Parts: sequence; structure tokens; C-alpha cells
Amino acid sequence: MYDRLKGFRDFYPEEMSARREVTDTVETTAARYGFREIGTPHLERTQMYVDKSGEEIVEELYAFEDKGGRDISLTPELTPTVARMVVAKQQALSKPIKWVSTRPFWRYEQVQQGRFREFYQTNADIFGSTEPEADAEILAFAAEALTDLGLTADDFEFRVSHRDILGGLLRSFDADVDVRDAIRAVDKSEKVEREEYLGLLSDAGLSYDQAAEFADLLDRGDLDEIADFGGDDVASAVENLQNVLAAAEDFGAGDYCEVSLTTARGLDYYTGVVFECFDSTGEVSRATFGGGRYDDLIESFGGQPTPAVGVALGDATLQLLCQRAGVWPEEALSTDYYVLTVGDTRDVASRIARDLRASGNVVETDVAGRSFGAQMSYADSINAESVVIVGERDLENGEVTIKDMESGDQTTAPVDDFPGESDAPTYEDYE
Amino acid sequence: MYDRLKGFRDFYPEEMSARREVTDTVETTAARYGFREIGTPHLERTQMYVDKSGEEIVEELYAFEDKGGRDISLTPELTPTVARMVVAKQQALSKPIKWVSTRPFWRYEQVQQGRFREFYQTNADIFGSTEPEADAEILAFAAEALTDLGLTADDFEFRVSHRDILGGLLRSFDADVDVRDAIRAVDKSEKVEREEYLGLLSDAGLSYDQAAEFADLLDRGDLDEIADFGGDDVASAVENLQNVLAAAEDFGAGDYCEVSLTTARGLDYYTGVVFECFDSTGEVSRATFGGGRYDDLIESFGGQPTPAVGVALGDATLQLLCQRAGVWPEEALSTDYYVLTVGDTRDVASRIARDLRASGNVVETDVAGRSFGAQMSYADSINAESVVIVGERDLENGEVTIKDMESGDQTTAPVDDFPGESDAPTYEDYE
Repeated sequence: MYDRLKGFRDFYPEEMSARREVTDTVETTAARYGFREIGTPHLERTQMYVDKSGEEIVEELYAFEDKGGRDISLTPELTPTVARMVVAKQQALSKPIKWVSTRPFWRYEQVQQGRFREFYQTNADIFGSTEPEADAEILAFAAEALTDLGLTADDFEFRVSHRDILGGLLRSFDADVDVRDAIRAVDKSEKVEREEYLGLLSDAGLSYDQAAEFADLLDRGDLDEIADFGGDDVASAVENLQNVLAAAEDFGAGDYCEVSLTTARGLDYYTGVVFECFDSTGEVSRATFGGGRYDDLIESFGGQPTPAVGVALGDATLQLLCQRAGVWPEEALSTDYYVLTVGDTRDVASRIARDLRASGNVVETDVAGRSFGAQMSYADSINAESVVIVGERDLENGEVTIKDMESGDQTTAPVDDFPGESDAPTYEDYE
Repeated sequence: MYDRLKGFRDFYPEEMSARREVTDTVETTAARYGFREIGTPHLERTQMYVDKSGEEIVEELYAFEDKGGRDISLTPELTPTVARMVVAKQQALSKPIKWVSTRPFWRYEQVQQGRFREFYQTNADIFGSTEPEADAEILAFAAEALTDLGLTADDFEFRVSHRDILGGLLRSFDADVDVRDAIRAVDKSEKVEREEYLGLLSDAGLSYDQAAEFADLLDRGDLDEIADFGGDDVASAVENLQNVLAAAEDFGAGDYCEVSLTTARGLDYYTGVVFECFDSTGEVSRATFGGGRYDDLIESFGGQPTPAVGVALGDATLQLLCQRAGVWPEEALSTDYYVLTVGDTRDVASRIARDLRASGNVVETDVAGRSFGAQMSYADSINAESVVIVGERDLENGEVTIKDMESGDQTTAPVDDFPGESDAPTYEDYE
């Protein structure tokens, strides 16, 4: 007997039906916003991640050499791949480009609740607009996907921040700051003690007093104070953040957004607005997913300068959020009809099954040569709403029996008129 | 600039919309037959393939060692994974088990037309029935998936064969035959010259005369003659094949099936009926996909003996078949509404876009701060059916303009009554 790899998951039909319902909801929301589905390779050259995604991801890569001597990796995230695809057809694509996809990714991480080595993400991105409406549309799509799943403003909030506010503030100190390291420190600030956080900021080049002042500024989160403190660049980033929030308000996402400058996002390539969705259902508020603006990535891939903003919803944390809020779909099979054969009635039973399927019904019939009782028990196990019994004796009278599985009521119907005109005949129709 | 790996594909939105339509059709057909979707890992232990899938697949594996020292492989096919999943929950699963999934697989192969290193398959399998109805349901599902795509009996045929007929015939010769090698030779028989084919059979242990007699028997394909020649085991396999074809006839797939004993399927684990779908649209008839029975695999994975039969439809050959038959969906975007803003009208335009989306429409609006002309040109590029123009001056009169993009006709509508009661208001509604 073989075992499954650690951090990988098998999804059996009941659980899968709930997952499918959630994915379909998110993808339908994206489609209504005009995000267009793309299909992307699951392997890319390792160098793409070494160059672009920052140390953290590279350490977690499933990387190896293929039989042709290429250094390749299982994709740990989508953004570098879509950047490559935008560059490859830059001239032909009309902008703004709005793309969406749902697929697996892989990172060799410590497995824990809500974190697996194989996970699924729905990524939605907009390329070709620096305008605040693009950031706001990403926020609005993400909020609407969640509300379409049944979540409310009581269940989640988007904590919105801005990389240029953080970077501008850091640069405004009289110190030789490694902005990248300092932003990583901010990203960790909610997960570590204050002293450790200040230590990380000091490691990045701030003095202890500067680190404390910076941390306090972010904690207070007073945008006017921050604009005054940081100078023109920071003031302009503050204005951009405010414009994004105003557009998000117009787009219907206002109720879900709040400014939180201690939100930073771990990945190096973010440039402007960044945000994280926080789960407010539990005692411990935690990040469910996030996104943001990455205006420099396409150019760094050799393309024309192309602004970009996007979001990635991960399956595992989204499932936890939905489950805690009580909106995770029921994990159960559903079946419209089971067509039960008794004796040598396969030809008639098959005709009925085919007619019912032609109207779009989910229909099973016997493929295992089983007894009446075994078939009835199987019909029950797949939650069949109705069972159509096609028996030799009934057929001699030109009849079949239709049984409502919830009530147990049954009646006969003329076989020549079954399923008849109705797309979904029930016990009641023939009672 | 980074390049895509050889044998891997990027799918941009137009092509992806056609692919999605095809996948949805196949999955919907499977759902109507009561196949239940599962989700499966994309990596497994390499040993599973070394033990089970035969040399050909192992040579093509994307295999490597993970950071934990495990020998792992990208999944080259689904069957070993579903066998593992059946074994893991054998007691809890009610039988027959009917599973379906669509996902990528990887093999390091020579890239050619219809063959890529990353490819997609829809796999459908039934576990727990030795009855011919199970084989027939797989044939019927596959045939109906193709006819639901618009294909007809002129476009494809299923060539149906039986491993126990081939194996029984081979064992009936007075020779020390390696049945596995001989069946591989049969699998190659259509692709190589007759002399090479007979040579491969001789390598497998038949004398040259026996090889010629065996090849002639298969070519003639007279089931009565073969049953007489091969003895009881072969006669019983012939009966099973005939029973499967009779059930397939009842299930509506009779028109698509014909006996073809030179069809063998390459994989080692097949046991009973095997079949291949042949594309009859072109001058060169070729295999599009195939399937068959594999009754021993679950037991060899450490499970209870569990019969199984399945089919796998690959994306690339299916696309070629559909394209040659002229039923490949149009590769184009579709959009219901573009809501165009002129001046400072974002709040009203957003409200209209949200109302239209709430009725299920695909709606885009400006996220890039662009001019009237640029927005109209973008609306055209996404094939918007209608454009709703929300202009400052119109709004002063309490109006918006709705433009039919095909005819170019436009008229005004009262903004307070737009979109009004209709889920999909058109130019005609306000004319």
C-alpha cells in the first residue's frame, strides 16, 4: 500500500462537491467583472523565481533538473508566470488586461492548519492601469466573491496599506535603511513581540529610537500625520491610498476596507497599495489572503513598463473562513434519479435513464448486476431524490414505479409516457 | 525575458474560453451519468509508478528528490492515484464507485502534434463491478461526451478489444510466450510494418509461423473462429466482449463501437475490455484516447480485490478531433455590457455596473481613466454587446445612453430606471 505525500490532499466526492461550489462561486464573480480565464504551465524555469520572488519562496521551491538538463520548478505562485505571458504578447493584448485562473501551486513548507505543500489559488489580476479604479476593482471583486459565498462584513475585513507610504517613511529617517528588510519586518509585526519587531527594524538600519518612532507612526495610522512627517513622496502615496479607498466605496467594497499600515505583504515585488483579508469570525484574527500592486514586475521581465494589481485567494484559508462563518457548503452527493432494474429490463431502464439525462438530470442505473435491495441501498447512499423501478412484472402491464425517496411514497406510471413531457417527473406527477 | 518550457502551453483568454467550453461539456456529461468529481495530488511517490505503470511511463517521469529526501514524481497519469485513494477508504466507500476529474499530467516525451509534456485529461472510472454494464457505461459516457460536443458517428469510432482474448490466444500456442511483450507488439501493430510486427511477436516467444497465424487471426477478427481456436478461456473472453457490446447497444453507444482485436492499449495493467477512440475525420485515422478494464490493480495496491474500468480523454487529441470535425468552439471573448464613463460619473456608472452584474451579466467599466474613444475601442475589443454611456451632461437630464454594438444604434434611458426590471436591458427596450 502506498501513502500520500505529506502536505498533499486527496479530495473525495462529498468534500469535492463543496470545494467545487466555492470555486464556481468565486470564478462566476470574477467572470461577471470581466476577468477572463487563462491557462498556465505548472512548471517554469527556476531562475524566474530566483530573480523575482524573494528568498522566502526560493527556499520553498520544488526545484529540480529535468531530463533535458533544464533547472525547473513547480510554480509556487502565479504572478511571475502571468508577467511572462504579458511580456510574450505585450503588443497584441488590448489593455487593461484582466485575467483570472484557479489552479494548484506547491511550496515545501511546514504543514499546519490552513497550510499545505500543495494548495489551490484563484488569482485575479489587472495589467495596464495605474488608476485607483484598478486597485479598487480588485478589492471589489474580492469582497463580492466573499459575499457571494455568504460571508458578511461581520466575518471579514480588508486591511489596506501602501508600500510607498512604508518605503517613503523609512527613507525619510536619517539612516541607511534596507527598505526591503524593513518592510519584511513590518510584515512580521503582528506575529512577533514588539521588542523583536523593533530589533528587526534596527537590523534593517534604523536606530532603536527611529524604529520605535516608525512603529508608533504605523500603529497610530493617522494619514495626515504620516503625510506631514514623510514629505512629498509619502503625501502622494497617502493620496493614492485615499483615492483607492474612495473608488472602492463607489464600487461597493467600502464596508469591507480599513486602513492598516502595519499590513505589508511578504513578497518583494509589491509597489503601491497592498491589502490582506482578515478573518474576524474567530478569537484570533488572521490573514486569509491578500494582494496588491506590483507596477515594476513586467518591466523587470523585459516588457514595456506595465502597471499591475492583483489578488490571490487560497483554498485552505478560505475554507477555514467559510467554515467558521457557517457558510461552507454541505459536503454531500446529490442525485436526481436512480433507475432500478429488476430482472431483464436493461433495455427499457437504459432508455428511461437516457431520456432523463437528456433533460439535464443526474441519473444512475445498475452497472453491477445487483439485487433490488442492494440497488435501493446504493440509491440511498447517493442521495437519489427519486427511484424509478423498472421491473419485469410492471412492464408486462406497461408500467414503471416511481418512488419519492424522502417520503417513501411510490406510484406507477405508464412506461410509454415516462418521463413524458416533464424534464423532471416526480412521484406527485403520477400520484 | 524568460521563456516557457518546451512542451508546455500558455492559454490566453480566447483559446481558453473554447477549452473551458469543451471541458465543461465533458464534465457535465459525466455528472449526468453520476460520475462524482474528486481532487487528486499532482505529486506521488515515484515507486508507485516504477511498480505499476510499466517501463514506458517510468522513462518519461518528471522524477526528483524533494527537500525531505523523498523520491517523488509529477503524476504522469491518474490511475495509480485513484487506485491508492480507493484502497485508503475501501471500507467506507459504497460501490460501485464512479469518479471523474479533469487536471494536468506530465510526461517527458518528444513534443509533436497533439502531444505535449504538460497535457490535460478527463478521467472517468468505475470501481466495484465486473459486470459488462460497467464497461458499457464507460463507452456510453465517452460516446455521449463526444456527441454532446457536436461530433457524430462519421467523425469517430471506438475500436473495442479484449486483453484476455489476446492473452488467451497467445497462451494457446505451443510456445513460451512473454504475454506482456506480445501485447505491446500488438499495440504497435498499426504503427509499424508487418515484418517488424512479426519480429516483435517472435521476440516475445512465438515462432515466425505462430506469429503470422496469430496476426492473421486478429486481422480477420472472426470472434467465433477465435473462440474455437483459443479454447475455454478465450471463448469466455469473447463472450464477455459480446456482452459488453450488447450492453453498450442498450446504453445508446452501439453506433460508435466496433470490434478491433489489433487494438491493445500500451499500459500493462489492463485486464479485460480495452478500447481506443479513432478519429475518422482525416485521411489518416489515429487514436484520440482510450480506456479499458484493470481488475487487478487495486489488489496489487494492497486493497481488497476490486474490479475497475475507466477512460481518459486527453485535451490535445480531443482538440484536433473537434477542429477537424468543425465543432471546436469559437475562440472569442464575450461581454454583455461595457459601462462607459464620461467625466466625473464613476458613482453612477458603478451603481449601474453592479446592478447589471447582480443579474448575472458580464460587465466591465473603466479602470484606467481613459477617453471616450479609448473606452469604446476597448469595449469593441472585448466584444461587448451593449455599451452604456454614463456622461455628465446626460446625467444632468437624468439620462444614460445605451448603444447596441452590432447595429451601432443608440438611444437614451432614464438613469433612475436603468437597468430597471429587466435582467438584460437592450437598446430595443428603450428605443
